[in-house]
Amino acid sequence: MSKIWASGKDEESFNNRLHEICFKTNLDYDNLLMPFDIEALIAHGEMLGECQLIPREEAIAIATTMRKMLQEAQNGTLKMSPEWEDCHSLIEAELIKRVGEAGKKLYMARSRNDQVVSATRLYGRKKIATILSHLKVFMETLLEFSKEYEMVPMAGYTHTQRAMPASVGMWASSFLEILLNQKETIEAAYTLNDVNVLGSAAGFGTAFKIDRELVTKKLGLGKTQINSMSCQLSRGQVECQTLQAFWGVMFVINRLANDLVWMTSAEFDFFKVSKAVTTGSSIMPNKRNLDPCEILRGRFHIFNGHIAEAQSVIANLFSGYNSDYQESKPVFMEGLELIQTSLEAMNIVISNITIKEDKLKAAFSPDIFATDVVNRHVLQGNSFRDAYQEVKRNLEAVTVEDPLENIKSKTHLGATGNLGLKQLENRLRNWQF
Amino acid sequence: MSKIWASGKDEESFNNRLHEICFKTNLDYDNLLMPFDIEALIAHGEMLGECQLIPREEAIAIATTMRKMLQEAQNGTLKMSPEWEDCHSLIEAELIKRVGEAGKKLYMARSRNDQVVSATRLYGRKKIATILSHLKVFMETLLEFSKEYEMVPMAGYTHTQRAMPASVGMWASSFLEILLNQKETIEAAYTLNDVNVLGSAAGFGTAFKIDRELVTKKLGLGKTQINSMSCQLSRGQVECQTLQAFWGVMFVINRLANDLVWMTSAEFDFFKVSKAVTTGSSIMPNKRNLDPCEILRGRFHIFNGHIAEAQSVIANLFSGYNSDYQESKPVFMEGLELIQTSLEAMNIVISNITIKEDKLKAAFSPDIFATDVVNRHVLQGNSFRDAYQEVKRNLEAVTVEDPLENIKSKTHLGATGNLGLKQLENRLRNWQF
Amino acid sequence: MSKIWASGKDEESFNNRLHEICFKTNLDYDNLLMPFDIEALIAHGEMLGECQLIPREEAIAIATTMRKMLQEAQNGTLKMSPEWEDCHSLIEAELIKRVGEAGKKLYMARSRNDQVVSATRLYGRKKIATILSHLKVFMETLLEFSKEYEMVPMAGYTHTQRAMPASVGMWASSFLEILLNQKETIEAAYTLNDVNVLGSAAGFGTAFKIDRELVTKKLGLGKTQINSMSCQLSRGQVECQTLQAFWGVMFVINRLANDLVWMTSAEFDFFKVSKAVTTGSSIMPNKRNLDPCEILRGRFHIFNGHIAEAQSVIANLFSGYNSDYQESKPVFMEGLELIQTSLEAMNIVISNITIKEDKLKAAFSPDIFATDVVNRHVLQGNSFRDAYQEVKRNLEAVTVEDPLENIKSKTHLGATGNLGLKQLENRLRNWQF
Amino acid sequence: MSKIWASGKDEESFNNRLHEICFKTNLDYDNLLMPFDIEALIAHGEMLGECQLIPREEAIAIATTMRKMLQEAQNGTLKMSPEWEDCHSLIEAELIKRVGEAGKKLYMARSRNDQVVSATRLYGRKKIATILSHLKVFMETLLEFSKEYEMVPMAGYTHTQRAMPASVGMWASSFLEILLNQKETIEAAYTLNDVNVLGSAAGFGTAFKIDRELVTKKLGLGKTQINSMSCQLSRGQVECQTLQAFWGVMFVINRLANDLVWMTSAEFDFFKVSKAVTTGSSIMPNKRNLDPCEILRGRFHIFNGHIAEAQSVIANLFSGYNSDYQESKPVFMEGLELIQTSLEAMNIVISNITIKEDKLKAAFSPDIFATDVVNRHVLQGNSFRDAYQEVKRNLEAVTVEDPLENIKSKTHLGATGNLGLKQLENRLRNWQF
Repeated sequence: MSKIWASGKDEESFNNRLHEICFKTNLDYDNLLMPFDIEALIAHGEMLGECQLIPREEAIAIATTMRKMLQEAQNGTLKMSPEWEDCHSLIEAELIKRVGEAGKKLYMARSRNDQVVSATRLYGRKKIATILSHLKVFMETLLEFSKEYEMVPMAGYTHTQRAMPASVGMWASSFLEILLNQKETIEAAYTLNDVNVLGSAAGFGTAFKIDRELVTKKLGLGKTQINSMSCQLSRGQVECQTLQAFWGVMFVINRLANDLVWMTSAEFDFFKVSKAVTTGSSIMPNKRNLDPCEILRGRFHIFNGHIAEAQSVIANLFSGYNSDYQESKPVFMEGLELIQTSLEAMNIVISNITIKEDKLKAAFSPDIFATDVVNRHVLQGNSFRDAYQEVKRNLEAVTVEDPLENIKSKTHLGATGNLGLKQLENRLRNWQF
Repeated sequence: MSKIWASGKDEESFNNRLHEICFKTNLDYDNLLMPFDIEALIAHGEMLGECQLIPREEAIAIATTMRKMLQEAQNGTLKMSPEWEDCHSLIEAELIKRVGEAGKKLYMARSRNDQVVSATRLYGRKKIATILSHLKVFMETLLEFSKEYEMVPMAGYTHTQRAMPASVGMWASSFLEILLNQKETIEAAYTLNDVNVLGSAAGFGTAFKIDRELVTKKLGLGKTQINSMSCQLSRGQVECQTLQAFWGVMFVINRLANDLVWMTSAEFDFFKVSKAVTTGSSIMPNKRNLDPCEILRGRFHIFNGHIAEAQSVIANLFSGYNSDYQESKPVFMEGLELIQTSLEAMNIVISNITIKEDKLKAAFSPDIFATDVVNRHVLQGNSFRDAYQEVKRNLEAVTVEDPLENIKSKTHLGATGNLGLKQLENRLRNWQF
Repeated sequence: MSKIWASGKDEESFNNRLHEICFKTNLDYDNLLMPFDIEALIAHGEMLGECQLIPREEAIAIATTMRKMLQEAQNGTLKMSPEWEDCHSLIEAELIKRVGEAGKKLYMARSRNDQVVSATRLYGRKKIATILSHLKVFMETLLEFSKEYEMVPMAGYTHTQRAMPASVGMWASSFLEILLNQKETIEAAYTLNDVNVLGSAAGFGTAFKIDRELVTKKLGLGKTQINSMSCQLSRGQVECQTLQAFWGVMFVINRLANDLVWMTSAEFDFFKVSKAVTTGSSIMPNKRNLDPCEILRGRFHIFNGHIAEAQSVIANLFSGYNSDYQESKPVFMEGLELIQTSLEAMNIVISNITIKEDKLKAAFSPDIFATDVVNRHVLQGNSFRDAYQEVKRNLEAVTVEDPLENIKSKTHLGATGNLGLKQLENRLRNWQF
Repeated sequence: MSKIWASGKDEESFNNRLHEICFKTNLDYDNLLMPFDIEALIAHGEMLGECQLIPREEAIAIATTMRKMLQEAQNGTLKMSPEWEDCHSLIEAELIKRVGEAGKKLYMARSRNDQVVSATRLYGRKKIATILSHLKVFMETLLEFSKEYEMVPMAGYTHTQRAMPASVGMWASSFLEILLNQKETIEAAYTLNDVNVLGSAAGFGTAFKIDRELVTKKLGLGKTQINSMSCQLSRGQVECQTLQAFWGVMFVINRLANDLVWMTSAEFDFFKVSKAVTTGSSIMPNKRNLDPCEILRGRFHIFNGHIAEAQSVIANLFSGYNSDYQESKPVFMEGLELIQTSLEAMNIVISNITIKEDKLKAAFSPDIFATDVVNRHVLQGNSFRDAYQEVKRNLEAVTVEDPLENIKSKTHLGATGNLGLKQLENRLRNWQF
């Protein structure tokens, strides 16, 4: 393997098994990062040319070649093979191979330290945008579902016990509202990624008269991360906070998945689920299982573990780059992938579900109306506490009512008769993705 | 103990040891929540009056009494004792004791379910504000420290090895910049807490014609959380995301604390630390230890554990209130307290540190200038890669330079000679706390 | 506050707020540790006397006084007040107050570093024994429950869907067998705590000619932890591994609690639960909730968070004592308390549950017998795969069978008709607690 | 893709993207599990033959074919390709292809549910043995290192401050003793894996008259896991506890790695490290970094995250198989791989380290002898507390002593002059791997 820091002897001397254990990275991750690394280097090279740190014609040659390499990296023709330590080394070697000596000049005023952070930020920014487009689709699906079943009664539960009348629309749009509330948190994470760290070099800046703001502008980034040491201090920190920022989304998926697993059991049987999203058993011919929801529910915990890893792998370290940082890369990239695929999968599930109105209605046993009976006593002038004790003493007198009338009759904002779907829809429309 | 849901027999029958294990809450937490619970109830009661759900004069009597109770709760004269299940029960009983039958009427159109979420959100909103005031003080301290030592050279490390010239100001302001980058994330968490959930009752709304927007306005909250089920779905979720939002702050404290522990060891000895922040040993008379930084470093991991608990205690649960939620309360409140005290403590530490200029200078061994020598070769026309190999072959030829001249000579934004402290100061000034 | 390492000036100079934040320990923990600290000091003092490091008569005076203090600490008359830094300081001061100058001599050949580890190990050893006695009671309860309902049919579920016939006895004893499998793991944790660290002093041993093996013998401990540095290296490590060793027990409680929450819902309604273990609602008079099981379920996640804290608070630290270690004390002691109370609570719950045989039977819908129909095809000579497809094509032909006959007919070890309860009982009887 | 539970239509109907997201397993894991799955099936088939559930000659044909497939799976010629759902499906299809109809009969009295647990236990048992062989090598290396440098003085640190005289041998063997203390915990984990779950089928046993004890014997396993439901309840639980059981080993590697990073910094410079284990920088020609130790240090946190995932992914689930379980498989297998490679890597590092005696000696500044001066006062008749204050008042009078004489003079068990290496060696020799 060719290491850019190696003199001939070093390369031979590093223990092979140790190399395999420590540095054999997942090639897939480096292939994913490669286009972003090249994108950053193009901006860096153009800046070097404009600042006259490298000759104009060489800068142009570099840029032209790199743009070609960018296309190849994006379409997969330029890709990692196991002999490369990382994508940074591959790009450097490939550039020199293609443009000759001029290629070596690109590597002034930078280090792999700022290069890897830079590629990671650009990747993060892009991946957040992709995730947001899936989140939007999923919220639209939830909104449609909520509208369609806005006035379908469903038993509401507390402590997993039947409690009070609710509705399918209320249930579905409760998840939607939590998702809408994630807007500021996710945008804050975007802001953390939308920064330029190039020029911080190994973490202490460089003697060359570079123009970092120019690079920021060329990359269309929101801000230059000023302090060179802070660029390394943010390695792993921004990654961790980005994963945290999607915790709320993953939480909603976990809870929705769990509800669906239970609500499609024989005991509840509230929903009809298409074969597009259920599986069978290898031994029991009677089974149709909502496997995807179980898997999504489980992956929430895998995601939480990734947050735990990201939180702690960069703790108790000394300022400046540490190799422990490299362990945060797969955690970050796998974590983001988990978010995206969980959103896609849950959207498919919801799109394949319809209701069983009779079964939903069957869950309306008399006790579910007890609180409403109390409330009527109150409206007749009793205090709530007294009415509560009164009804409790005569629970058997509570009878089944018409669920639909019941849910329609509750009209304050956020009650079954007034779910505020229009407001939620407006918030969805106003979210610029 | 008096339980509001109990008929006489129930109360006797619940197993005593089980009650002790499950419900003996930390009284301190309920005392802290009590004022916020009362505040919410006042708004609720006024709304009931204005909506003519309870007679005007009774509404006034309730409000007057509750305002008095609020003062007592704030100054500590109204407080929990072990016979109360929670502060909600105490307040209800106390109100009825003081205003009689009218007091019972306050308990229409709400439940302990929305009451506890409501008090928690108001508490969270207030506590975030308190934490922000401490964060501001700490950032000011860091800024002053950075300005004072802006031009004091300090060895920069990578892999815990001496790497390149840096400065005390660069080191200190690297932490400051990360803190400034937390603005959007923390504000997003504030937004999550700045919501009104009252009126969602047990999680399904209520039959009474209440005006939830009016309560939102009275409490000065940013938004009504519309969907009644979503109010319970957010129990623990907002708490978790609030802790996550301060992870970046706690991370900065962890890393700063760790740097200080090492940089005040005999081997580095970069800083002079006052006795206000060091301790001695029970057996070794020679010791002065920077105990507080070790403790703060350790508490970061305790904080991470709290996030882990908050993330997972509400997973895999069925929609609607579950008692598992109650376990998230101490996690949330302890977590916020940890943030506040860590900020206070680290501010005291930094305020008690001065530099040892001679020791800082002594760390500038020749190798630290090697990269700068390479860069000069580059400025003379060599490519970076060739110059690198050239210097590496003749490392012994690299000699010590004047560190101050060196750090001054690097003038791009974010390098030692141009730390951008003015920009950071502007960002600090523009942060509305 | 009196600090044993302080000369007059130091004491005054330490920042008050910083002291409050860093060292204001939970007095309860130190009260719990105090008897164990005294117990260790008695053995240490006797050893010093027998090794002629302190005069015989002084050693006797110290031992006599300390034994009295031990009783007082155990009955709560000697206890912490806020002015003491920790129980070690209190004991030292109290001893000197009572026996005069001789008391000071006890503090040779030890340090607070080995003293706190020593008290923690003795506390851990004792607490494990207490937990084991509760575990035994709980396993006896599960065994009795399993025997009583050994032949009561219960639907068996996979993917939360009805799958095949099972029994209440099979369900209950499945938890019992996992608990029995914890024996070796828990005993290993006991072994880790059953060690003597006294004499390792501050972590590097001492110049005095002490006899550590004698102290080990006096304390009835299994082993001397030899290497003095390893005694400090084990600080937090043994605590973490002790918590981990009970994870299996806590997991069983979590899963049993969750099953009970669901199986007592209206949809399943498999069990009759006494009022001793259920609670009501403040707003819904119809509710009886199995609150304790929800809380126990939730506390599993709190416990997991404690393991996470214990795992990571001692990571990335330099050899020798670090103050970060002190943060592991509450994590350890709270964690053990959680285990004990969870066992007690779950035992109370199980003791208050009986079955609803009709509801259990009602869950036996035809599909649950489909696999048995396949098996009968196989016994008639078909291959399993072909029989499976055959039955799947004609699922509607599968009819309800007698559940009791069905579960009796399956007689291999571990099937419903042969639960091996006798073997499990033997394993329980052979577990020496 | 061919699914064994599918009738023609089902197969077509499952959503492709959902399948990709949920079931596209890592082929590597299934390849690793395949030999163990086959091994279990061979024992199962032989038992079926001996119990006359399938004809003798067919049983022989199956066994012969499966043994051939076992060899092919072990040497990699039989392996997964993406069209297979899992290795269980591949094996079933392959067997039927090779022996015809008889192959289908093997699939009586089992399910994928017990099959996957079975393969996982056999894999776990084998992997633990492999890890133990690496642990043994590493402990031998540590023992040799400790013996070689038994009498080389090294400064002992507390709070990262120089504290008292220690030695290289004491430092190195402190890690060894903690590793030796892991014996019972690791053996307990082995016991958890050393069980037979075959015959528990889908988790409720089977109607066939199988002989589970015979299978246990054929597989050379320690115990039959009796209760069929407990076999599924243990899915993920044993995996989690197996990872936990190696936490102590990973902790030792983390702390040793961290010590080495610091002790090879310019400020300490205690060790000479060969080029076999250090790397260079892409920008700073002066750097030699102990990269592997940083990476190993970081991977401890990744490992902790895996434990967190394993702990929580199986929580709050209903009894019986759930698809969430499948998410614990990569966590388990990656976790075990992390343990093995970390042990290998740290062994290589230690084998490439020698000491720098002059630098070790240079750290013996006068203050490090202060405690010994106190102790001499005590031996002259002063109480420890008075002597401590006396020396503290005259710290400047403490002078440098001969470190070697000092460490030799401390002769109690576990002090520098008596490290008990012989006892540790005996414990290592007596550990049967």
